[in-house]
Amino acid sequence: MAMVDKKPACGVALVGCGTVGGEVARMLVNERGALTERSGVDLELRHIVDVDFTRARALGLPETCFTKDLERALKDAEVQVVVELVGGTTVARQVMERAIQAGKLVVTANKALLAHHGNELFALARKNRVAIAFEASCGGGIPVIRALYNGLIANRIDAVFGIVNGTCNYILSAMTEQGTSYQAALAQAQAKGLAEADPTLDVSGMDTAHKLAIMAAIAFGQKIDLAELPVQGIDRLDASDVAFGKELGYVIKLLAVARRQDQGLLMGVQPVFISRSHPLAWVSGPFNAVSVYGHATGHTMYYGRGAGGAPTASAVIADLVDAALGTAAVYFRELKLWPDLAVRKLPLKEARRRFYIRITAKDEPGVLAQLAAILAKQRISISSVLQKEVPEAAENAAASGVPVVITTHEAEESAMRRAVEQIDALDVILAKSVCIGIMDEQEE
Amino acid sequence: MAMVDKKPACGVALVGCGTVGGEVARMLVNERGALTERSGVDLELRHIVDVDFTRARALGLPETCFTKDLERALKDAEVQVVVELVGGTTVARQVMERAIQAGKLVVTANKALLAHHGNELFALARKNRVAIAFEASCGGGIPVIRALYNGLIANRIDAVFGIVNGTCNYILSAMTEQGTSYQAALAQAQAKGLAEADPTLDVSGMDTAHKLAIMAAIAFGQKIDLAELPVQGIDRLDASDVAFGKELGYVIKLLAVARRQDQGLLMGVQPVFISRSHPLAWVSGPFNAVSVYGHATGHTMYYGRGAGGAPTASAVIADLVDAALGTAAVYFRELKLWPDLAVRKLPLKEARRRFYIRITAKDEPGVLAQLAAILAKQRISISSVLQKEVPEAAENAAASGVPVVITTHEAEESAMRRAVEQIDALDVILAKSVCIGIMDEQEE
Repeated sequence: MAMVDKKPACGVALVGCGTVGGEVARMLVNERGALTERSGVDLELRHIVDVDFTRARALGLPETCFTKDLERALKDAEVQVVVELVGGTTVARQVMERAIQAGKLVVTANKALLAHHGNELFALARKNRVAIAFEASCGGGIPVIRALYNGLIANRIDAVFGIVNGTCNYILSAMTEQGTSYQAALAQAQAKGLAEADPTLDVSGMDTAHKLAIMAAIAFGQKIDLAELPVQGIDRLDASDVAFGKELGYVIKLLAVARRQDQGLLMGVQPVFISRSHPLAWVSGPFNAVSVYGHATGHTMYYGRGAGGAPTASAVIADLVDAALGTAAVYFRELKLWPDLAVRKLPLKEARRRFYIRITAKDEPGVLAQLAAILAKQRISISSVLQKEVPEAAENAAASGVPVVITTHEAEESAMRRAVEQIDALDVILAKSVCIGIMDEQEE
Repeated sequence: MAMVDKKPACGVALVGCGTVGGEVARMLVNERGALTERSGVDLELRHIVDVDFTRARALGLPETCFTKDLERALKDAEVQVVVELVGGTTVARQVMERAIQAGKLVVTANKALLAHHGNELFALARKNRVAIAFEASCGGGIPVIRALYNGLIANRIDAVFGIVNGTCNYILSAMTEQGTSYQAALAQAQAKGLAEADPTLDVSGMDTAHKLAIMAAIAFGQKIDLAELPVQGIDRLDASDVAFGKELGYVIKLLAVARRQDQGLLMGVQPVFISRSHPLAWVSGPFNAVSVYGHATGHTMYYGRGAGGAPTASAVIADLVDAALGTAAVYFRELKLWPDLAVRKLPLKEARRRFYIRITAKDEPGVLAQLAAILAKQRISISSVLQKEVPEAAENAAASGVPVVITTHEAEESAMRRAVEQIDALDVILAKSVCIGIMDEQEE
């Protein structure tokens, strides 16, 4: 019976044999039997397409699979799925388009490509009656994309909050837990291989924005225009703000936020303070986590390693199994969440949130009254004030000003911006004020 | 095009209209359009089978659907899926068997039934070429069953640790955070509607064991014999142990544990100490969370509301959507994780773990030497000792003995049991010793 039932293998072509690609290939080759024992499908790696096979050789992958010729792999009728792990948005885009046009289902981990060109690529796949699967594009080994399109399908999603960049989270954890400066924490991350030599894509918040665009598109079933998203990185954070926030009961996190608000969406990426009691505040070091609030489930959270060869390969292979089972094609064809199908688009709304402001003022009477008057005029109500006595000895500190930390109740971002501008124009202010949003617990 | 594409509705019969059933029915009726807009499938609630329609009427559900006759619902050829939300293991079992024999796919939240009779029911479903879907049986609204059979399919699962009973977690959180006694915390939970009038199923650990049996069966692809699982509840926990553990950096949790160990499995349910730095330690109040360790992903965790009408209904409806899409049938037919297909069974292995022991001894010289000698004879090595000075004034305390708290390095459960027996037989021991396992971070 089992013999009669045996299905033919599902042929796979892998394009790009780097950290993730190498691990996908290694698992497909070395763990083929075990994977079939669990999944019932037989994934056969038929081609490894790359320009350089140093890594592939080091991993002992079968030389017979190596080819520099994508078209050769695409012409192989036994190949049903192409795994695009090239990275970037130029060659990768061509690879994906060619694979789709050749009638192959595409599995990818490429967040930048999907965030920039996902809508067109999804439409192209639909036109060619194939599918794109992309679990590995967000959250590494955490099956959060599946949660959004499958596990939580009964829900109107009200909010997605994500810590989806391990490099940033490692740096912020070090700043919070050890009180190190941004520069020192970055150097630490680089020494541990957790940050690139050029860390711009990560620390600028752009990588987080790519993932937010992908997750929000499915969560809210609409096109997301990456260019519209406000994105702020962690590279200008001051250790003193991290410390003041800690004193007030907050932890700083680079958060991807997409939240229903009135008849629109609040979306963006920025470092924000979250309460120490929120589960996302516990996520430390290189780990990732995504909180998803559904109207029926309330708060759910998905936690794990957001990067690295093996965790990301796990997500790629989950998509390959769904490709071989035919379920990936069904979800792509039938569900209405994919952004190329979006008929409506919720407008972006201005954030209403609480704020933390650190003001550097002369240590003289009447300062607080002036600050309070400006905030009152913008209808921003003060929640707490933290101003410490300057020790008599610390004359230097007095010369460079004393920090006044104010937290506010909910206010509009634009009102807050106006208030900060007016505050910074005062004679008693000695340095540019720092303003950081406070993300309160999502109401359920 | 969209019109031509329109698929016929998928007919649903719901059996059992209680807390979860009522919410499933309400969502299917009131949110039918929104659900179709997201999922592309149209779920039509055709029958609500129950013996009492008080709740169904209170929810304003359509009277035309009400019937006391299961067979009538099963005879309806338009019904493709039966949702079994009766609970218990007698009537529910008959309902499920009849539905399967009538060729219907079954969606259930019934953990007790699956834990006791899952293997036979799965086999019966396979014989009748239908499927059983049971996301709602574990972890309420958290899509953890899907993570095990789908999102993590590329992984050999090495361990599953779960906090899967909200009642117990609420009680333990109250004992830990407020230092209340077990009885006071239970009364608090009952007052808040978080514990039943008869809380036995929850506090005995049995409900947790049901969920463990279900999760472990899929995680390790094998039959689990519920009767073999060691199960210990929280009802005999002493507040002083919770407090001592806290002092040592631990949090007490009722943990479902299934872990590969040598060539077997360590499995069981018991209150254990886990390090304050483990993500499961953060899970507070009625929330649930399951940590799954895969060989490729490492640690992943799934967090959310483990009970309640709406969260559980979310899981039921996710299964209904997969039933309507045909994907539920594919997973059930093709994957090899279901326990009725198991060809191997890993033997249960004795736990090797660290232990916390609280000994109540006379306050006299030489006690610690006697304890240490007994432990040494059993080859159990001491990790730390916590013994506080008894204040001069506290003569009563001295009369009833002083607590000596010892933590050990890894030891076998049987050796530990022998050591505790010998310790309790000493003249200097004034009360039965308390022994609690310490669950260290899973190695990755």
